[in-house]
Amino acid sequence: MQHLKKLPGVGTRSAERMAFQLVRWPAEELKGLADLLSCVPESLKSCKECGAFLEEDTCPFCVDERKQQQVLCVVANVEDVYAIESTREYLGLYHVLGNLISPLDGIEFQPHCFDGLKKRIQSLGIREVILAIDSTVEGDATSLYLKREIGFEGLKISRLAFGLPMGSRLEYVDGGTLARAFLGRGKF
Amino acid sequence: MQHLKKLPGVGTRSAERMAFQLVRWPAEELKGLADLLSCVPESLKSCKECGAFLEEDTCPFCVDERKQQQVLCVVANVEDVYAIESTREYLGLYHVLGNLISPLDGIEFQPHCFDGLKKRIQSLGIREVILAIDSTVEGDATSLYLKREIGFEGLKISRLAFGLPMGSRLEYVDGGTLARAFLGRGKF
Repeated sequence: MQHLKKLPGVGTRSAERMAFQLVRWPAEELKGLADLLSCVPESLKSCKECGAFLEEDTCPFCVDERKQQQVLCVVANVEDVYAIESTREYLGLYHVLGNLISPLDGIEFQPHCFDGLKKRIQSLGIREVILAIDSTVEGDATSLYLKREIGFEGLKISRLAFGLPMGSRLEYVDGGTLARAFLGRGKF
Repeated sequence: MQHLKKLPGVGTRSAERMAFQLVRWPAEELKGLADLLSCVPESLKSCKECGAFLEEDTCPFCVDERKQQQVLCVVANVEDVYAIESTREYLGLYHVLGNLISPLDGIEFQPHCFDGLKKRIQSLGIREVILAIDSTVEGDATSLYLKREIGFEGLKISRLAFGLPMGSRLEYVDGGTLARAFLGRGKF
């Protein structure tokens, strides 16, 4: 239960239910899960270039020939890469930061924070950097630092649009989102 | 309970709790609410021009001198006017449609649907129409009909931006919204 409670969205009660469920599983299923968990550290490696997970020692995102090689999408976490890939709206390279700058959580801006990113932008000859970063306080702060640190002549830096989420009704949208949707309104 | 259940978000159980609560209210509070409810039909009138609620027989949205008179914001329901006003991002006129075109609910497109709107656009000399309409199927359909019916030379028609809602984290955003946020990305 102490372990299960560390999973996202699992509280004391859910952890209890899960634990009682697990002890009733057949031995081979329990062993299957245990084996999978114990081989995670050695079998799941991150790409040294972009930070996404490797598949059989090659990065599926860095080597894809169909990708536009001059566009780089910067994300906070590795799961964001998969969320963006599934939209099929983006065909370019990725860069996983690992975390956002968040002084309240003890993650301060360090001068060398974006060294790897800066090197990649220069060595790959990137023309556009897309910041696909949360629209939270931490996301805004990180985006501003990024812009200051990586911005140089000729590099286009863009950020995902803010506005109404798809399928939303106006009466349920918060004031901040509505205000941004107004400011960003486009020709229809 | 039958009446209370018609309110939005109130189910059988909540209606029951509310009804039992109401019968315990002091007589003067009950009478106060009853009086308010019974005078709604005669005291709350809609502006014949824009469709928002009148305050003492004048429309606070049509007569405001500070408003830009050449911008018209089209909304589905009267509550949307108040939501937009509270953002303080918009200074212009309003037009309340009353409902969205929704064939599944029996609200089909009728040729005279937008007659009032068309007349106002012409008589007021409107230059920009902002569609502040839900990003739902009904909202999209109504927007397309509107564009076809009211679009004429020199009139700018814009729609609220689609994208990430404020304060959202990428991992919780649906694929459709993420895709639109990518397409609509702007210079940062």
